[in-house]
Amino acid sequence: MKSAENPGETGSPELARLVEGMLASYARDPRGQHVNRRFLPSREEILEIVQLLFQLFYPGYHGRQDLTDENLPYHVGNLLSELREKLVRQIETCLCFTREMAGEGAGDCGEAARRAADELLGRLPAIRDALVLDAQAAYDGDPAAQSLDEVILAYPGFLAITVHRVAHELHRLGVPLMPRIMSEWAHTRSGADIHPGARIGESFFVDHATGVVVGETTEIGARVKLYQGVTLGALSHPRDEAGRVVRDTKRHPTVEDDATLYANAIVLGGGTVVGAESVVGGSVFLTRSVPPRSRVGMKPPELSLRVPASAGADFEI
Amino acid sequence: MKSAENPGETGSPELARLVEGMLASYARDPRGQHVNRRFLPSREEILEIVQLLFQLFYPGYHGRQDLTDENLPYHVGNLLSELREKLVRQIETCLCFTREMAGEGAGDCGEAARRAADELLGRLPAIRDALVLDAQAAYDGDPAAQSLDEVILAYPGFLAITVHRVAHELHRLGVPLMPRIMSEWAHTRSGADIHPGARIGESFFVDHATGVVVGETTEIGARVKLYQGVTLGALSHPRDEAGRVVRDTKRHPTVEDDATLYANAIVLGGGTVVGAESVVGGSVFLTRSVPPRSRVGMKPPELSLRVPASAGADFEI
Amino acid sequence: MKSAENPGETGSPELARLVEGMLASYARDPRGQHVNRRFLPSREEILEIVQLLFQLFYPGYHGRQDLTDENLPYHVGNLLSELREKLVRQIETCLCFTREMAGEGAGDCGEAARRAADELLGRLPAIRDALVLDAQAAYDGDPAAQSLDEVILAYPGFLAITVHRVAHELHRLGVPLMPRIMSEWAHTRSGADIHPGARIGESFFVDHATGVVVGETTEIGARVKLYQGVTLGALSHPRDEAGRVVRDTKRHPTVEDDATLYANAIVLGGGTVVGAESVVGGSVFLTRSVPPRSRVGMKPPELSLRVPASAGADFEI
Repeated sequence: MKSAENPGETGSPELARLVEGMLASYARDPRGQHVNRRFLPSREEILEIVQLLFQLFYPGYHGRQDLTDENLPYHVGNLLSELREKLVRQIETCLCFTREMAGEGAGDCGEAARRAADELLGRLPAIRDALVLDAQAAYDGDPAAQSLDEVILAYPGFLAITVHRVAHELHRLGVPLMPRIMSEWAHTRSGADIHPGARIGESFFVDHATGVVVGETTEIGARVKLYQGVTLGALSHPRDEAGRVVRDTKRHPTVEDDATLYANAIVLGGGTVVGAESVVGGSVFLTRSVPPRSRVGMKPPELSLRVPASAGADFEI
Repeated sequence: MKSAENPGETGSPELARLVEGMLASYARDPRGQHVNRRFLPSREEILEIVQLLFQLFYPGYHGRQDLTDENLPYHVGNLLSELREKLVRQIETCLCFTREMAGEGAGDCGEAARRAADELLGRLPAIRDALVLDAQAAYDGDPAAQSLDEVILAYPGFLAITVHRVAHELHRLGVPLMPRIMSEWAHTRSGADIHPGARIGESFFVDHATGVVVGETTEIGARVKLYQGVTLGALSHPRDEAGRVVRDTKRHPTVEDDATLYANAIVLGGGTVVGAESVVGGSVFLTRSVPPRSRVGMKPPELSLRVPASAGADFEI
Repeated sequence: MKSAENPGETGSPELARLVEGMLASYARDPRGQHVNRRFLPSREEILEIVQLLFQLFYPGYHGRQDLTDENLPYHVGNLLSELREKLVRQIETCLCFTREMAGEGAGDCGEAARRAADELLGRLPAIRDALVLDAQAAYDGDPAAQSLDEVILAYPGFLAITVHRVAHELHRLGVPLMPRIMSEWAHTRSGADIHPGARIGESFFVDHATGVVVGETTEIGARVKLYQGVTLGALSHPRDEAGRVVRDTKRHPTVEDDATLYANAIVLGGGTVVGAESVVGGSVFLTRSVPPRSRVGMKPPELSLRVPASAGADFEI
């Protein structure tokens, strides 16, 4: 690695060799580089957008705290104005970035970006209406919750659904990358990986959140509850004749209204339907549909139990 | 969404319409707002408190690094003085916040805050004694640990129990919100969601930590080990006649001294007791009590195995 | 806790008593302190090293964004020069820290640090070659991936393997603490806890990442896929005659080329081999070897299903 003449000391020749080595690697395989290109979404600004949304959805809980009925309209005006500017800029960058990477001329993405941003902004009141129902569902569903405040300030599943309802809208509007960067931030913070494509009904509650995975083509009805570690995933992926995975089929389950899935339950497959009001027990592994009002659980005898003789003969599980 | 006369351009009228839309949403449903109110705990300052606690519990590993026997008392004095000020302020805010949200006059929360803060501060030496035992338990329980330093600097489960032992004390003192904000930070950092209400004995070790959930009314004895993904949770929640969940019953299990629960084991129910020295195997789903020194495991034949013909007929699982 | 003469007010005597209490705790048990010592690795600078590596591996995606073929060599030179300086400093600190804690004289760790840093730097091009294959494996393995950009910017499993390939090299070079601090950062961000000691072949893909645990002595072949919640762990730890865990045996499984392990599968034991091209289904718990091309799954009848009478008699699971 190092010249024998110059041990323990890295001068310019050594550094030059390291640079050459890296450049040779870039040349060997051009993937994974973003060079000679103009557009890259800013993760930092996208996360600022997320922060502004939290301030707008839950005024006074995040950001400015001296809000009154009098100053609220001005505060909201400021937030929306700042939000729109950042949204247009990042959506534009995401659109141009994708065109450029695809080898198309970037063209003018500004008009499409403004349209998408205004579309999203116009939907925010309805999204906020839905999020209040989600907060209430969390409070109603968790005996440990002391107040709605606690849900808004500290529930990871509520953070995840807040981000998801916006990311889903951006996904629906065809904005690339940005929704995924948002949802991955929520994943990092909450442990729940909800793909922006998933369609989720009202009054949704994810308790504890860690390890929850909701796939891109999942459909979830109203008043559904998921606990930690629940996967709504795909069976093995279909491939085309060339062996490439097929990307546009329904691969993930449908969960109907009022269903509950307990910790670590795994439900797989695009044709799998969990019927309305069903309860899927902890650790259940399910790849077939179950009708409405089903109770699916692990059968008791799946365990082996050895107890010491002193515990008596009358114990069984 | 946009006026036809002014495409691609959002002037004041467009912004005004967006503001009206949001205000209408706030008016439709007043939940999820913190307006015309004076008190809100600061997540930021609460996390500063957590950082000060780490500096106090593990001097020299976090924060100031040139510590000697001579300067240590002054350093500790500075930390405690800063900690007390922040603790009193945030506990006071949490108490006033809760009273205000409940529609009671905030009154003077200062005296109660000072009492709770001093109560906690007086407990810190005993908490620190316990945490050293937790660090040792992590080192003793994990063959991959190279030193106690590694545990203190990089073990997520040790971070989680450090925060928990303080959050539990605040919970016990009746401080609202603050313990939950602390424990949710630890959840984000470690993947382990331990409710501040849980009672945990000495020399506790959580390995890997991700996905661990320990519910509010859990009781854990001494020298217990939990691995990743273990849930100590509730069976379905009891409800009162009005259909509201009942919030003050024992809903989560008891785990007695020296028990070990391996990865993804789920134990549910307030009456469920895992007896002392028991071992609960990976992925076990348990809703009944087991006596001391039990061994609970998945029965081997729960798997189906297809192997290619070439693997020979003598293979079985 | 408080002097009766001076209620509601904590003056110097009270603070002095708190300081004494903490000092008494330090004196009671000297563990968990880093006092009268000179060397402590800086988590902050180690994470700066990680950021520099991301900029070097994926130029233009992280850090400086106006890169062209012309300025790329200078950019890479700057990065490598800054990286080397920080690497040498932190490796040196880690080496001296460990010697000091072991009670050996710190001696001169500089020469060994420079050697290890240069060894790592020389390996970076090969590591980058491998990481590009990992990115491609993620894109090929996930139908929801829209582009390689998305993988590089937002896939948690790709973040985890990026950090791992460097941490593993540092582990191999005998650098203490630093690889573990790196991998724990990746764990916090991605949910995947991959021990720096694990040996992982090319084109590795971890989907969703949360809850994945890969133990220290795991060996993974080429083109292996892991889904969320997969554990490659140890059976109960062997202990020596004194009851201390034995730290240097192979305790974790071997997974051969082209194997796939679905969500929450648990494979345990140092002698356990998952044969090449095998598929281990979701939630499978496996402690024995399976030959190449095996299909291991949960047997369907492990579930109990109760459906309402109205669902008809022809339903079964």
